[in-house]
Amino acid sequence: MSEVRRVGWIGTGIMGVPMARHVLEAGYRLTVHSRTRGKAKPLVERGAAWADTPEALAADADAVISMVTDSPDVEAVYLGSAGLVRSIRRGALAIDMSTVAPATARRVAAALAERGADFLDAPVSGGSWGAEQATLSIMVGGEPDVLERSRPILELFGKSITHCGPVGAGQATKLCNQILCAGHLVAACEALVFARKNGLDPRTMLEAVAGGAAGSWVVSNLAPRMIARDFAPGFMIDLQQKDLRLVLETARETLACLPATALANQLLTAAQAAGHGKLGTQALIETAESLNTLIHEG
Amino acid sequence: MSEVRRVGWIGTGIMGVPMARHVLEAGYRLTVHSRTRGKAKPLVERGAAWADTPEALAADADAVISMVTDSPDVEAVYLGSAGLVRSIRRGALAIDMSTVAPATARRVAAALAERGADFLDAPVSGGSWGAEQATLSIMVGGEPDVLERSRPILELFGKSITHCGPVGAGQATKLCNQILCAGHLVAACEALVFARKNGLDPRTMLEAVAGGAAGSWVVSNLAPRMIARDFAPGFMIDLQQKDLRLVLETARETLACLPATALANQLLTAAQAAGHGKLGTQALIETAESLNTLIHEG
Repeated sequence: MSEVRRVGWIGTGIMGVPMARHVLEAGYRLTVHSRTRGKAKPLVERGAAWADTPEALAADADAVISMVTDSPDVEAVYLGSAGLVRSIRRGALAIDMSTVAPATARRVAAALAERGADFLDAPVSGGSWGAEQATLSIMVGGEPDVLERSRPILELFGKSITHCGPVGAGQATKLCNQILCAGHLVAACEALVFARKNGLDPRTMLEAVAGGAAGSWVVSNLAPRMIARDFAPGFMIDLQQKDLRLVLETARETLACLPATALANQLLTAAQAAGHGKLGTQALIETAESLNTLIHEG
Repeated sequence: MSEVRRVGWIGTGIMGVPMARHVLEAGYRLTVHSRTRGKAKPLVERGAAWADTPEALAADADAVISMVTDSPDVEAVYLGSAGLVRSIRRGALAIDMSTVAPATARRVAAALAERGADFLDAPVSGGSWGAEQATLSIMVGGEPDVLERSRPILELFGKSITHCGPVGAGQATKLCNQILCAGHLVAACEALVFARKNGLDPRTMLEAVAGGAAGSWVVSNLAPRMIARDFAPGFMIDLQQKDLRLVLETARETLACLPATALANQLLTAAQAAGHGKLGTQALIETAESLNTLIHEG
């Protein structure tokens, strides 16, 4: 329960690097580990130490933060043969900011509890830009007192920090977020297809509807990129699909019937089949248009 | 092309009455007609004249405005045996503010053109509250000069007036609006179902996600009413279904493939089957929950 000074960081992808940099810049002593050592270079160059394994990294850390891709990655980092649970100190904080299954969060928390370490699931939304600017929204599952101890670190990444419930509730909330994003994405595609089929100027259509009951972040931010054919990834289709897989797996386990989310998942699968997995989710418009043989008209 | 002083108004429903009142209050001479004479009473009491038929109403009007429910109503009002086209004056303005099929708008415009009268389709969004407060968004199809002549009247209903293209483009834009609203509605229901199935407090979930990429007007305005079981109609399920019927009919005619909109239409059909047609669209949560046998748990 002592003050956090030494932080271990695992995961140096598009989100992990800028987030870890905020930790360094706030004056914490940072040790970093990632699957690909080269990707930790920008952090090591700024003074972070390197650890060869999660186990080595956790041995003298007051807090450990993970930001990796998927449930199996989190399980490996925490529970694997050189995982964090082997060495984590009593009273240390472990915060997983990846987006994974709520069940994974609960499994990891239980294993850490046996070692006397505390866990939060704290997935984020806001993308790489939010990570750079420290404007992420953070959805936290875990004990309130663990959140309070973690707050000074979490505030390095964003000011919108919501306590969603016990361990797993942060992940479940993030999955609700993805259900909404996916539904809004498909709706925007269908509105734009209908607009083109009916001879409307799509920009004028958006202008007319975006301010009212049809408005959404997706309509305001992604639909204009769909029209402009700007498919640079704010959030990649492959990652949206990973998150929808988590949604639908969790929905199956909890017997939640989500037909529109399942449809969005299928349409995004068509986008992946067309080779668009590394593009931003707004590239789904290409699939929607190809269903309407509009693809070569634009 | 002379100044508009005498206005004929057709349709005295939940939208028509407050809109026509704005016309009266702006000093125009108003004559009113509706299928049910009694519903015109609040306007007649404020000084409007009554006409027994659209034909009688149009005979001395500089502008005629219709606000009725569906395509057949508009066809009857304009093209029926006592319809407006029989008596409308050369150079008169006719503005249909109902939500109907783009093809209906084009048919009416063609018949009026033969009589030398000008037509705009000008459907609105913003609901009865927007009608009362004169904050409707108006989506206009027609010739730019006809819109300019009509603008002083349209501005009595709202300041957001978008010229969407030729006759029919206002209706097509309104249908895009409804595609988005329906998609957002279903997404909100699925997020709330998933939240309950996973033990989340739904209000906390909304708080955590509404400000980011998952945000929408529906999430901010209808989802809280879903949680509170406040199903008073801002916009009725029966009317949303009428509009989705127009979307899907027009989509069939133009060969637009809209699987998510078709799914929303089916789910709303289940809500109608459950007797919820006169409730607000947010009552779709009851159908989503009944699909998950959550209906009696809340």
